[in-house]
Amino acid sequence: MTSVLGFSCTLPAWVSDIADFERAYETDSDKMDLVIALAMNNATRNTGGPFGAAIFDAESHRLIAPGVNLVVPASNPTAHAEIVAIAIAGSRLGRYDLGDEGASPSVLATSVEPCAMCLGATPWSGVSSLLVGARDADARAIGFDEGTKPDDWVGVLTGRGISVTLDVQREGAVAVLDTYLALGGHIYNADGEDNDA
Amino acid sequence: MTSVLGFSCTLPAWVSDIADFERAYETDSDKMDLVIALAMNNATRNTGGPFGAAIFDAESHRLIAPGVNLVVPASNPTAHAEIVAIAIAGSRLGRYDLGDEGASPSVLATSVEPCAMCLGATPWSGVSSLLVGARDADARAIGFDEGTKPDDWVGVLTGRGISVTLDVQREGAVAVLDTYLALGGHIYNADGEDNDA
Repeated sequence: MTSVLGFSCTLPAWVSDIADFERAYETDSDKMDLVIALAMNNATRNTGGPFGAAIFDAESHRLIAPGVNLVVPASNPTAHAEIVAIAIAGSRLGRYDLGDEGASPSVLATSVEPCAMCLGATPWSGVSSLLVGARDADARAIGFDEGTKPDDWVGVLTGRGISVTLDVQREGAVAVLDTYLALGGHIYNADGEDNDA
Repeated sequence: MTSVLGFSCTLPAWVSDIADFERAYETDSDKMDLVIALAMNNATRNTGGPFGAAIFDAESHRLIAPGVNLVVPASNPTAHAEIVAIAIAGSRLGRYDLGDEGASPSVLATSVEPCAMCLGATPWSGVSSLLVGARDADARAIGFDEGTKPDDWVGVLTGRGISVTLDVQREGAVAVLDTYLALGGHIYNADGEDNDA
C-alpha cells in the first residue's frame, strides 16, 4: 500500500445547530447543559454513544470545541467524547497544549466521568479544570466499561493542577444514559461481547 | 460557526516506504523492528515525537496499521503512536473492536511503554496482546511525562485477557529516545512548561 494513511473524525452536522461559539456559557451548569444536550442528541439521533463533552475558555466562557462519542460511526474505539473535544480544540486553535504559557485557562466538561483513557488524556490537553456530570457507576449501571483508573483519580488530577467538580447536573446526565438504554442503544464492551440493550 | 467540525491525523508520507502490508512480521522482534524504525524515522525526519506503534494480525503476522506520534504536527495532544495506530486499524478494517467475535487476534506493538491514556485505550482496541520496547523510566529519563498509571498496569491488562511482553528490543527503542535527545528534539510536557532538550 502506498496510499496516504490516516484517520478522521467528523462531528454530526446537527452539532452546529446546538453548539454556539458566540455565546458565553457563564456557569458550570450552563456548560453542562450544552454537554448534556450534545449527549442527548447523539443518543436520540443515533449518531453515536450517549456521551458528550466540550472545552470552554474559562475566562470568556466561550466554547472552544464540542465533542460527542463517535466510536461506532467512526469505527474508532478511541473516539470518546472527551478525546474528540480535545482533538478538535487543538485543531481549531492550532496548538497541542491548551495550557501554553500566556493562554487563558480552559475547562473540559464531560457528561460522564472519564474512562481510564480519557482520564489519562486530560492532563495532556492542558485544561485547568474538569466538570463531570454522571458518575462512573452510572455508566457501568447500563453496561459501559470505564476501565481501570487509579483509586484516587480526582487526586491524580488535582495533584497536576487540574480542579475537578463532580455531580454537575448529574440527574440530567443520567437521564441521557437512561434514554439511550430505553431506545435500545448499542452497548459496546471491550471484551468483544457486544450487547444490544 | 456552521461549518463542519472535526479533526484528522495523517501519517507522514515516508511511512509507506517502511511499512510493508504484504510482509509477514513473524516474530516479536520482527514486529518491534518495524515499530522502532517508525519511531526512529519520526525522530530523525522531524515529523513528530520519538514514538512508534503498530497493530498486526497475530495469526498471519501481517501489518494492519502503523502509527507514529503526531502530537506537535497535528496540534493534537491525543495523537500518541498507539492511539494513531488503533484509530487507523479501526478505519482500515471498518470496525471499532479488533476483538470482534470471529476475528483473528491482534497484537499492538509500541516502542515505549504506554502512557496512562494509551494504557486506557488498549482494552478498548480489542487487541489480544501488547509488545513493549522501552520502559516508562526510559521515557521519563529524557523528560517525557507518562502520566499516572495503576501500579500493576500489566496485571490490569492481563486481567482483561491481554498478554503483555516487556523489553522487546528495549535497547533499540532506547536508542531512538537518545537520538531524539541528541538531535535537540522538542520534549513536551503536560504542565505547560515545554523544554527544548
